[in-house]
Amino acid sequence: MPSPTNARIDIERFWATIERSGEIGIGRPGGLARMAASDADKEVRDQFVAWCRAAGLSVRVDGIGNIFARRAGADDALAPVVMGSHLDTQFNGGRFDGIAGVLAGLEVCRALDALGHVTRRPIEVVNWTNEEGARFSPPMVGSGAFMGAYGLEWARGRADEDGRTLGEELARIGYLGEMEAVPHAFDAYYEFHIEQGPILDAEGMQVGVVTGGFPSTGMLIEFRGETAHTGPWPMERRKNALIAGARFLVAVDDLGWVHAGSGGKATAARLVAWPNKPGILSDWAQAVGDVRHPDPATSAVMAEAMRRAALEAAAKADCAVEVLDVWQWGGAIFAAELIAQVRSHAQALGYRHRDILSQAGHDAYYIARHAPTTMIFCPCKGGITHNNAELCAREDIEPGLNVLLACVLERADR
Amino acid sequence: MPSPTNARIDIERFWATIERSGEIGIGRPGGLARMAASDADKEVRDQFVAWCRAAGLSVRVDGIGNIFARRAGADDALAPVVMGSHLDTQFNGGRFDGIAGVLAGLEVCRALDALGHVTRRPIEVVNWTNEEGARFSPPMVGSGAFMGAYGLEWARGRADEDGRTLGEELARIGYLGEMEAVPHAFDAYYEFHIEQGPILDAEGMQVGVVTGGFPSTGMLIEFRGETAHTGPWPMERRKNALIAGARFLVAVDDLGWVHAGSGGKATAARLVAWPNKPGILSDWAQAVGDVRHPDPATSAVMAEAMRRAALEAAAKADCAVEVLDVWQWGGAIFAAELIAQVRSHAQALGYRHRDILSQAGHDAYYIARHAPTTMIFCPCKGGITHNNAELCAREDIEPGLNVLLACVLERADR
Repeated sequence: MPSPTNARIDIERFWATIERSGEIGIGRPGGLARMAASDADKEVRDQFVAWCRAAGLSVRVDGIGNIFARRAGADDALAPVVMGSHLDTQFNGGRFDGIAGVLAGLEVCRALDALGHVTRRPIEVVNWTNEEGARFSPPMVGSGAFMGAYGLEWARGRADEDGRTLGEELARIGYLGEMEAVPHAFDAYYEFHIEQGPILDAEGMQVGVVTGGFPSTGMLIEFRGETAHTGPWPMERRKNALIAGARFLVAVDDLGWVHAGSGGKATAARLVAWPNKPGILSDWAQAVGDVRHPDPATSAVMAEAMRRAALEAAAKADCAVEVLDVWQWGGAIFAAELIAQVRSHAQALGYRHRDILSQAGHDAYYIARHAPTTMIFCPCKGGITHNNAELCAREDIEPGLNVLLACVLERADR
Repeated sequence: MPSPTNARIDIERFWATIERSGEIGIGRPGGLARMAASDADKEVRDQFVAWCRAAGLSVRVDGIGNIFARRAGADDALAPVVMGSHLDTQFNGGRFDGIAGVLAGLEVCRALDALGHVTRRPIEVVNWTNEEGARFSPPMVGSGAFMGAYGLEWARGRADEDGRTLGEELARIGYLGEMEAVPHAFDAYYEFHIEQGPILDAEGMQVGVVTGGFPSTGMLIEFRGETAHTGPWPMERRKNALIAGARFLVAVDDLGWVHAGSGGKATAARLVAWPNKPGILSDWAQAVGDVRHPDPATSAVMAEAMRRAALEAAAKADCAVEVLDVWQWGGAIFAAELIAQVRSHAQALGYRHRDILSQAGHDAYYIARHAPTTMIFCPCKGGITHNNAELCAREDIEPGLNVLLACVLERADR
């Protein structure tokens, strides 16, 4: 009978799946632009389902397009041990972000098959819909809807910039199933993911033991002014919502620099305005800002400073301002027993490892409200991600996959 | 025989045309959204042509959709006296900007008909295509192409945000004619226009004698950075082109405030970026800025400060920057004899008038390179324009129209 210390994944088998996935939804050179519920998303989902069926897994699609592929357990009535992440990408995405975590789950099942081992508990591999939030906002809408954080109709009604809704598009590509009345219980949830930051790579670490997430706050801010001519209209009477938005962006960026020395980040990544044309002042703008800091108190200070920056930007541009939405994520959300388990197996397997906080949001953040959850990070070259230059080598990924296999094997036989 | 001092336009007849025009291309309440070469533009062009034909004018459309409506002169081989402006609007436009200038030309012809008078020289009324630049960039492309400032194929190839070109759209609506090998000579060009600023209205003036335009400079700036994750990516490695663009916008706005006391204005009215999404830094942004000041030397200082601001914004955001285009307009471009003529007739007709500089760009700026040119301004309520609240009353417009009639009658009988 295989044990967590002697079972191993097959990195070449895993790599073949990553390479095949990397042929679907080609973006910029070396990268992917595989938007949620697009034709390319259908193609990779079809490929994933085919792989799962070939591995003997039974496949179910829920009411927001999440795919659950199940490997039966010896005691199949028990709650499953679940692994997963997402197969969609950003507009300029890489071939590993999210994808590696879904295919890692598939590889664990294949490795168990190769060992001829049936675990006591069932195992599930999940692909969460629209994690990136690139085509449909917000991000992590599949895991959020699964958890009940979003109402199903609201989630299905999210529209892309052409007005097509997530629900319509999932139905079109054949991935709109039935929602469970109550989300089924998980015994545990493990999400394998590339770090998406430079720390593990810079320090030569092989495995990141993820102890939680940067406490983070995002805000959607709306500014309202008045259209007017860009020429004759006096400066003191202008209410240019685009300028209010620009001042907010700059203030958020400045805030990131203030706290950069202690690991803080602040980003204003989006600004849209109307009419946003030469010759006319804009009367409407929306901006998205976020702040992240490893220290919860400092993160809260940054969030308050961001809120004040929105008010000050609006006042300076003589515009009205409304904080349309505030969302918070991160913190000490992961299960201590799972964190300890990951650390212990990384140690036992002889991998260079360190505790690390996730700085990005992940589906695991929602699932942590549902079941004991943790994440396992692997290094990626230079920390580059959300970019076509995102890159991992086999040796970057293999250690984390073996830790994942050890954890899942141990947990599923418990 | 009518003289410049006793001829009068019929404000009720003029007003009926303005009201009919205001039914075509309805925008926000009270305003218009009549984009160049749209279905609404076709409808108002058809109406204008019908009015012109009913007034006995012969109509010709040139290769960029400019409409010339001609009233024959007694000596019809002489160069015509020309009046005109534009029938298109901004996305949130008013019912008077440009439109009043085209319909003013029609009213002058009708007034001459009512007087039973045939001028020595022919008279033409022109509607210039896409003055606003709202749907197709740049603005004033019709008058610019007529003048040869833009090549015909380049002008026809200007695309809107859906990729449809101005040439295709003009052909679709039936307003793509043949271009003259050499633009025909004008004896003089008069453009009647609402002031689009608050000065005449605030001072109770009835006529603005336009002596020139604010010396102005616009720039199209491109910033290039790198996409990356908004979370883990360290502040010191970020190359967020959206932030470079936002810093440029803020710097331009600040520049406007520095010079506001002496009448200066600076506007950053447009910022677009890619991908411009939450979760990812943008690697591309374009921004448009402009500066305007009545003093040419100060205007030049502001232009140089705007150029430096682009470089500094790029440096601060660690992005590459390129000044893709620079355009300049304004200055002492109008004909002294026509300016004096306008002032003299405003005086003779007993209207409260003042000299004034135009702060906006106009088709007259291009035509000033082709023929003796000037403009006549009328007040508009509060100076509001490029806004659905733009408003003129009959009494705001009537004096300027009578001055226009006097000038054209005198010039065309010369």
